[in-house]
Amino acid sequence: MKFKSVGRKDAEHLESIVGPDRFSMGQSNLELHSKDQSYHPAVLPEAVIWPVNRTEVSEILRYANEQLVPVTGWGSGTSVEGNPIPVQRGLVLDFSMMNRIVEIRDADFQADVEPGVVYQDLNEKLRHRGLFFAPDPGARATIGGMLANNASGIRTVRYGSTRANTLRLTVVLASGEIIDMGSRSSKTSSGYDLINLFIGSEGTLGLVVQATVRLKGLCEEISAAIATFSDVEAAAGAVFEIKRSGIDPASLELLAQECVALMNKERGLGLAVLPTLFIEFHGAGKNQLQESVDMAREICQSCGCDHFMSGIERPARDNILRARYEMAETIMRNHPGCSHTVIDVAVPVSAYPELISLAREEALKSGIPGYVFGHAGDGNLHLILMGKTLDHAQRAIIDNVSNRLVIKAIQVGGTSTGEHGTGIGKRKFMETEHGASLEWMKKIKTLFDPNGILNPGKILP
Amino acid sequence: MKFKSVGRKDAEHLESIVGPDRFSMGQSNLELHSKDQSYHPAVLPEAVIWPVNRTEVSEILRYANEQLVPVTGWGSGTSVEGNPIPVQRGLVLDFSMMNRIVEIRDADFQADVEPGVVYQDLNEKLRHRGLFFAPDPGARATIGGMLANNASGIRTVRYGSTRANTLRLTVVLASGEIIDMGSRSSKTSSGYDLINLFIGSEGTLGLVVQATVRLKGLCEEISAAIATFSDVEAAAGAVFEIKRSGIDPASLELLAQECVALMNKERGLGLAVLPTLFIEFHGAGKNQLQESVDMAREICQSCGCDHFMSGIERPARDNILRARYEMAETIMRNHPGCSHTVIDVAVPVSAYPELISLAREEALKSGIPGYVFGHAGDGNLHLILMGKTLDHAQRAIIDNVSNRLVIKAIQVGGTSTGEHGTGIGKRKFMETEHGASLEWMKKIKTLFDPNGILNPGKILP
Repeated sequence: MKFKSVGRKDAEHLESIVGPDRFSMGQSNLELHSKDQSYHPAVLPEAVIWPVNRTEVSEILRYANEQLVPVTGWGSGTSVEGNPIPVQRGLVLDFSMMNRIVEIRDADFQADVEPGVVYQDLNEKLRHRGLFFAPDPGARATIGGMLANNASGIRTVRYGSTRANTLRLTVVLASGEIIDMGSRSSKTSSGYDLINLFIGSEGTLGLVVQATVRLKGLCEEISAAIATFSDVEAAAGAVFEIKRSGIDPASLELLAQECVALMNKERGLGLAVLPTLFIEFHGAGKNQLQESVDMAREICQSCGCDHFMSGIERPARDNILRARYEMAETIMRNHPGCSHTVIDVAVPVSAYPELISLAREEALKSGIPGYVFGHAGDGNLHLILMGKTLDHAQRAIIDNVSNRLVIKAIQVGGTSTGEHGTGIGKRKFMETEHGASLEWMKKIKTLFDPNGILNPGKILP
Repeated sequence: MKFKSVGRKDAEHLESIVGPDRFSMGQSNLELHSKDQSYHPAVLPEAVIWPVNRTEVSEILRYANEQLVPVTGWGSGTSVEGNPIPVQRGLVLDFSMMNRIVEIRDADFQADVEPGVVYQDLNEKLRHRGLFFAPDPGARATIGGMLANNASGIRTVRYGSTRANTLRLTVVLASGEIIDMGSRSSKTSSGYDLINLFIGSEGTLGLVVQATVRLKGLCEEISAAIATFSDVEAAAGAVFEIKRSGIDPASLELLAQECVALMNKERGLGLAVLPTLFIEFHGAGKNQLQESVDMAREICQSCGCDHFMSGIERPARDNILRARYEMAETIMRNHPGCSHTVIDVAVPVSAYPELISLAREEALKSGIPGYVFGHAGDGNLHLILMGKTLDHAQRAIIDNVSNRLVIKAIQVGGTSTGEHGTGIGKRKFMETEHGASLEWMKKIKTLFDPNGILNPGKILP
């Protein structure tokens, strides 16, 4: 596809849609929209535009589609697979001014939001109503970005990913057409399911301008426990047994010893520097939580747990959780002059111990500082490798480690990406992972975006 | 689209794919595949074929597609919206001989099954492993049929619909091409989500030949309670408060008094003939269940509950559940000479009391015996109306009641079908419900099935 640059006439037209304050070709704005939090190299767009409503988004896309100008949606740039980097330049459409919480319907456990709403801000608004939006990727992600990636997080093991927490979408297609899809009913068997096609499509099929998300009731009671093990495999084994027991934890996180050491250093947590499970329970009453904790303790002990600490109260729990959410940032801060690569794979839970072993072995062999952790309850593993910035030899080593882990994950029935999306880095695995259905993904792309203007260079190889 | 009849040459070719034992143009076989459990009139196919593997399915579809012979997939014919009635005649592809449980992977909470597996048979096999497949539509549905309809049931409020319990599909497209989609990992953000497009598409986009379904751990403890109210609205109000409390019941069923009366009569349950909530709790320990039951009691009492009976033990519970599962059959048996129409709508839970009132009012006004019940925890309502068979005046009244309830459901943000699918009867509401996105559903249909041979006359108006 031959795209067009944003010329003077294009700039004039685009500016006329939104007004001069919300269109920019200035260097600093281009730089701010040139890269996400990944290691992928920055690419400057040619212009940035900030629509405030769906009509503007529609007019922008209609024009860009006619003129063959690439358009890449932008949330808050916190993704880690290059998902919003405008690799074909063109226009970045920044949703930060479409950040209204349109309506909260307590009685239905639903909220209508614009894509620029940061999920923590929504949760701040919901707290006094006793509700929350469950997916929690950690960084200050926007809900638009979370939809684009099917983001998930620490509580996904209980509450599901962004996909599982979305009911309705309003989407602007490449042609400028605006369509609604889904239902406010919590269940439906009506027509074809379109919303799941758009969720996780990284803005390559259309741009979400409004979403109805599911909300959950904030738990009356929360309890947390920490279990330490002498080796990571034993910890991963306990994960399976906990899942099997029906306890239904709200988080089930694994942290290898190097991560615990860093958390101690940064936040003075004083945890034993051993492979650790962080387990959280949400419930309506104290007794049921105690029962869950007791069962988790028994299971961990039968799996060779060294120490099981339960009854961790709010301040300590919040401290640990914050340390976990900030893991990537903490690692980066501790390796100045390095770039971080997050390897994000997910596998059926039985293969998790094997994958964890492989990740640690690969990290060790690489000679590059590596950190293994993950949403163990979902079979999701992260390995962060801190290679020296612009060191091509280390980059090649990291790429090889990533390749081997991804191929292994796919071989055991898993996926090249559990939650970070395909973006730029995982495109090369799409054929291996999806086989013949990849051609149908391409046909769907062509159906919705025949000129290929929407976030070109992502997902499809 | 001009379809072709199954001629002698076609019959010879189709028979040559599967052998003479598994192809039939005999009247009794045609009749057995001419209607489901709905009120929609029977249409005889021209031939029935029973493939035993995906290669045969592929060869059959390739031939039918070339010859423009319509092909309708068949599970066990238990649907209630005419979903598998071969309205354009042609070929019915019966999956009953593709009923292997290919593999159960306990450790991953997954099973690979062929589409002809009846879900109760799978659960029978799983029981001694402590696992189960959660969606429970009640009738002896096949998993292929459940996938086609995105079926759900009594435990969906806790465990989700068929969609939420499916990880991977192998699908044969109209062209005969076989594609795999989805992942065995419990989470993924890789590529476009295709499986959700096929789930709920009623065999109009492709035919599922294998599925990987999620399994859940069987609960250690189950407890049930029955709450009776003096009016249906109060019962519906309690549903909302229970949902809000975070108790997370495993079922939350509403039964209007006429349903309770029938259950008493059929099974001697001796329940008070009043609007009733049946509430089930699943958990890992006795204490947590007791706590949930206590909270539910408090909530129901504060919502004006007349009587709350908890601690219902297994035999009584099973009896009530069986009566609930058999509701439709029981109603039919009690109205000889009548045909049953099940109205199946779902709404956001805040609109449930209003919808329940309207349903009862409409049933009363119609002068036709009506039964109101539903999966209240999901906002899903059923009204069964028993009109005299072939009584056109009553048919017209029922159609009008159905129209008013569906339009009301859509007006309050709900859906024309919560779980029975669009089939034949709900096609006329597709434009009202889906607006401009209906055109995109049609484009997707054309993309995957350009000749329109797959289950023509369903879903799309």
